[in-house]
Amino acid sequence: MKFIDSTLNEVDASVKLSEKAFQGYKTIDAKKRAAFLRAIADEIEALGNELVTTAMRETNLPEGRIIGERGRTTSQCRMYANLIEEGSWVEARIDTALPDRLPLPKPDIRKMLVPLGPVVVFGAANFPLAYSTAGGDTISALAAGCTVIVKAHPAHPETSALVAGAIENARIKEDIPANVFIHLYGADFQVGKALVEHSLVKAVGFTGSFAGGKALFDLANKRPTPIPVFAEMSSINPVVLLPNTLASDAENWAQKLASSLTLNIGQFCTSPGLLIGIKDEHLDKFIAGLTKAIEDVLPGDMLHSGISSNYSRKAAQTLSQPSVTKLSKPEQELVSQQGTPILASVPASEFLKNPRLEEEVFGPFALMVECRDKDQMVSVIDYLQGQLTATLIGNADELIHNKDVINLISQKAGRLIVNGVPTGVEVCPSMNHGGPFPASSDSRFTSVGIDAIKRFVRPLAFQNFPQSLLPKELQDENPLGIWRLFNNEWRK
Amino acid sequence: MKFIDSTLNEVDASVKLSEKAFQGYKTIDAKKRAAFLRAIADEIEALGNELVTTAMRETNLPEGRIIGERGRTTSQCRMYANLIEEGSWVEARIDTALPDRLPLPKPDIRKMLVPLGPVVVFGAANFPLAYSTAGGDTISALAAGCTVIVKAHPAHPETSALVAGAIENARIKEDIPANVFIHLYGADFQVGKALVEHSLVKAVGFTGSFAGGKALFDLANKRPTPIPVFAEMSSINPVVLLPNTLASDAENWAQKLASSLTLNIGQFCTSPGLLIGIKDEHLDKFIAGLTKAIEDVLPGDMLHSGISSNYSRKAAQTLSQPSVTKLSKPEQELVSQQGTPILASVPASEFLKNPRLEEEVFGPFALMVECRDKDQMVSVIDYLQGQLTATLIGNADELIHNKDVINLISQKAGRLIVNGVPTGVEVCPSMNHGGPFPASSDSRFTSVGIDAIKRFVRPLAFQNFPQSLLPKELQDENPLGIWRLFNNEWRK
Repeated sequence: MKFIDSTLNEVDASVKLSEKAFQGYKTIDAKKRAAFLRAIADEIEALGNELVTTAMRETNLPEGRIIGERGRTTSQCRMYANLIEEGSWVEARIDTALPDRLPLPKPDIRKMLVPLGPVVVFGAANFPLAYSTAGGDTISALAAGCTVIVKAHPAHPETSALVAGAIENARIKEDIPANVFIHLYGADFQVGKALVEHSLVKAVGFTGSFAGGKALFDLANKRPTPIPVFAEMSSINPVVLLPNTLASDAENWAQKLASSLTLNIGQFCTSPGLLIGIKDEHLDKFIAGLTKAIEDVLPGDMLHSGISSNYSRKAAQTLSQPSVTKLSKPEQELVSQQGTPILASVPASEFLKNPRLEEEVFGPFALMVECRDKDQMVSVIDYLQGQLTATLIGNADELIHNKDVINLISQKAGRLIVNGVPTGVEVCPSMNHGGPFPASSDSRFTSVGIDAIKRFVRPLAFQNFPQSLLPKELQDENPLGIWRLFNNEWRK
Repeated sequence: MKFIDSTLNEVDASVKLSEKAFQGYKTIDAKKRAAFLRAIADEIEALGNELVTTAMRETNLPEGRIIGERGRTTSQCRMYANLIEEGSWVEARIDTALPDRLPLPKPDIRKMLVPLGPVVVFGAANFPLAYSTAGGDTISALAAGCTVIVKAHPAHPETSALVAGAIENARIKEDIPANVFIHLYGADFQVGKALVEHSLVKAVGFTGSFAGGKALFDLANKRPTPIPVFAEMSSINPVVLLPNTLASDAENWAQKLASSLTLNIGQFCTSPGLLIGIKDEHLDKFIAGLTKAIEDVLPGDMLHSGISSNYSRKAAQTLSQPSVTKLSKPEQELVSQQGTPILASVPASEFLKNPRLEEEVFGPFALMVECRDKDQMVSVIDYLQGQLTATLIGNADELIHNKDVINLISQKAGRLIVNGVPTGVEVCPSMNHGGPFPASSDSRFTSVGIDAIKRFVRPLAFQNFPQSLLPKELQDENPLGIWRLFNNEWRK
């Protein structure tokens, strides 16, 4: 199959259609929007095995993973459907008038969240379903009442086309206006650039590399009217290994971290790429166990040739830095089409003076930073940039005694994990997938879980409005039965 | 009194002290933070008449206004104190573990909002108390658990110093760590620039001109680690006059809008600077009434010479544009030290082709845009940039028949008013003070009301954390008794 990039005229026409569709879509009842999202889930399921085999072929990901990811994708659709059907997410606040207040009467004011407008979504290479065409960005934006233009990821255009077809079928079945969802191709950066720069586009969702996300962020901020870009970009997900737990449990953690690091050839944004420990015999034992476990994992085909060649290049770059030692199969050559798991180590003193060592090597690569003592470990943590996750491995007692470490690392990450692994991003209300820059471009928002809908809305206040002109969410009688802050009191 | 700009070394030292103070302040109980905010209110009140006379002298604002603004300032302190004492604002979400879930166990995850770090605040010239040193930005940031560095507004340094002293007294009385609040002077842009560019600063609050806000926004986005800037900048606050209501009530609305426009010499960011009506005999009557009412208002001294000279310059610029007619006292010369109320008019066809006519003239200036018919009125609304407010004047019947107009204008503003005036920003939960760019740099946040605290926080998730290491807000027993989304259900 051949996929042809949109021309710049087509981009312009698409955005205009999306904006026009927004005028109708934003006024549609939440119940109808919810039915649309559920229909998208149904239609994705109705694609059956063709979707699975297509995604497998385009991404080299195994069947179990694709089937699991499809489940995640459809459950996200249903989760946002439930959220908007329940309706309290709009943060309704109502303050009724006090006409007799002195010195001035108080007007009636009511506020709720309203959709921003057309949203452009760039899907991720590593999640062809759950973070792509009908992924969290698209579905949370549609749930919010925004229209969406997806630029298909060039690494899985057929998968994207199948999913786009499912969304279109759902749209027709549920009688949703045309062009609420528009699907474009654009292997060339010019297409993405034109989308982000278009004056009618109001927000951007992106999951991918730092270079890609930062480029879009800069374009969006240079517009005459800047718009928010939610880019989930770069994270090496530090794992802090406290010493006592390694004394008793080094082998166990070596196995667990090796599994986390090499799962799907390390192609997760939450892959544990940086391990931080204090040099002693137990850390040595842990390192030996991790090295062995990683060496036992066979290399595999990565998502696409761009990712595997980047992996080889970035891994080689890190391995060539001063004082970096390759621990796993030191003699092995890097095979350019495959992701070979690699563990390397570096003394903390060296890590602290070479910013290259903090760059993400997307794939099954981890760098062990060996610290002299706790003070140096604290320095390493303090030195880190923003991260999606930070993990602490330690027994109950030493965690309590390392509150300063926890406190410090909490400023660096969007999600903290104790005695677990960072991979595995639960889709649930408490999830935060995002973190201080450069992990994401805006640490104040998550891209996973119900709160991801908050990226695509803004508050709008209505002062002295007659009931008949208010949105249902703000009418006196609360016809939708949602939670509202009514004269400073929560009511339903 | 003489106020000396901070040197760049002093800026650096101040930010470092602020960051150090943040490490302590962020862990302080909300109750203690609330006591601090209440003490700030008490100490501001304790300044007594000296604060009032100083502010009057520095701003030319009348006594009643300053006393009212002081009340607003202290009530904001107490409002945020109540908010954080109650505690539910942190958006706690708890999802408990499902260890037996297949194919993978579900971990325990909990999430809440946490403070960003040191915040830099630039106060507004036109609100020397409520939007300045202890204004909404400072107090909401302190409430969130951030430390604050205020750059005193150069137009009211003595007022700022008095208020800073009150904050310092409150800090000492409530035993809050030193440097939680730092007060600097910087008439030169270099001081503000150095603050916004400092790597340890995590967010910026600003109220002022478009040029000033946009410059800070650009600086913040060009940092190696970009940070959010909440700049409340430029708005002409369109008022749409529907024809039938003018037929019966032209004189009444002329009086009300004249009062709103000339209140405190028009020095409000919500001043109604653009009037939009359909040309007919009733609009003519309204214009005649408004002209007369405006001519009856005496000119007055503006906040400072910079603002009055800008007013004269910008008013003259607008009046010199093609087809613009000065309606109020057409023969009168502009007096450079004073703000003379001015009404001008322009045909819609001309307004639609001259972007200069959409620039804010900060002061008592309004431009009446006369439309041929409703279609042209819709074109004018569609053409507008983002605004803080948009107002609709119309009777019940014509409002219902102009839902398309309301729908369109709702996309342009942060607050919609029906049959009222835009000036008068209530401090209450439903207030939204902010709007699409260029009204503010981030339409997703308000700078007034309880939700303003959301600007200075980000979500942080805790996975698999032992109870003893969790913040109180997320502990099983809910020791603070706050509302939480617990396994997808609201509980207290």
